Amino acid sequence: MTDTSAACDASDPRIVRSRAAVLEATVELLGEVGHSGTTIEAIAERSGVAKTTIYRHWPRRAPLLVDALYSRVEHAAFEPTGDLRADLLALVGGLARKLRDPNWSRMVATLLDAAESDPEIAELSAAFTQQRRELCRSVLDRGVQAGELRADADTDTAAQLLGGALFYKRLILRRPATDADLEVVVDLLLDGLRTR
Amino acid sequence: MTDTSAACDASDPRIVRSRAAVLEATVELLGEVGHSGTTIEAIAERSGVAKTTIYRHWPRRAPLLVDALYSRVEHAAFEPTGDLRADLLALVGGLARKLRDPNWSRMVATLLDAAESDPEIAELSAAFTQQRRELCRSVLDRGVQAGELRADADTDTAAQLLGGALFYKRLILRRPATDADLEVVVDLLLDGLRTR
Repeated sequence: MTDTSAACDASDPRIVRSRAAVLEATVELLGEVGHSGTTIEAIAERSGVAKTTIYRHWPRRAPLLVDALYSRVEHAAFEPTGDLRADLLALVGGLARKLRDPNWSRMVATLLDAAESDPEIAELSAAFTQQRRELCRSVLDRGVQAGELRADADTDTAAQLLGGALFYKRLILRRPATDADLEVVVDLLLDGLRTR
Repeated sequence: MTDTSAACDASDPRIVRSRAAVLEATVELLGEVGHSGTTIEAIAERSGVAKTTIYRHWPRRAPLLVDALYSRVEHAAFEPTGDLRADLLALVGGLARKLRDPNWSRMVATLLDAAESDPEIAELSAAFTQQRRELCRSVLDRGVQAGELRADADTDTAAQLLGGALFYKRLILRRPATDADLEVVVDLLLDGLRTR
């Protein structure tokens, strides 16, 4: 999502600093004034980075908003252990921890609403959740291959249910999902998918 | 959520008409300009109903926004048939049909975002989903009592998963849930909850 033209060397410490300042200002503004108020002008003023510099990195506003959301996620590499339950808990646990951060989950709500009227934000937001969902699915698919889960297990739907449980809890019930909640959800799904 | 003081006779056809006009204008504005633009001033202008009249029915804006969402839901009484699968499909089917209406689901996204900064909208929105979730739970509880579902089935979590699947599909994956999707979700959950 970043401009990777030769004119923009991502290893230049000044560029790293100004990118970080822009993302930080964007995160703050999204939390304070919502997406409609998070204009390039406001971001430039808050970050102290010139509008022309911001536009060089992010020619449009939508990818900047989604990059701001991404910037608050640790991208720890997921290493499956082969223990189906533990692997699923590790994957949903990472998302649950982020959703327990009120600023981050508020940004999610703001961008989901923005996605309704901005196809570019919609596309970038969808890509954002896809990676974790595909990892969940691949863990479940390995369970099928190992004979632990039923051959006809709908692993795609199960992966959606895992993500859905967390978003529903946070955005609809407005309660953060605890680790105990995650175990209940994972166990309920695995009960339905296991070979008998 | 409605002012039921003696001065406001809900059976008076003029009052019924003006309330309907206000709700219609609110629905339109939420879809067009989002919650921050859906002010009492804008609603008065669009509906042709005086601000003082609007304030008499809805002393605050938040309950009006949530009433607008409610106003687009058919409140058909749910009559459980005793067929667990059919009853669950009927309950989630009603929500899925509403979420297939782009204007309605867009209002949901807008109000979920508004709930993040407005505790009154948050509380009213939570109450909004509670009724259907409790109906789902009572259907599942009857399945437990009948011995069809396991005695230790976590019916509360299962009801959340049903709702979560629909919201996730529409707001995150941005695809409306089809009737076939609902059957897959209900069957996956029932598989996990059935007695063996």
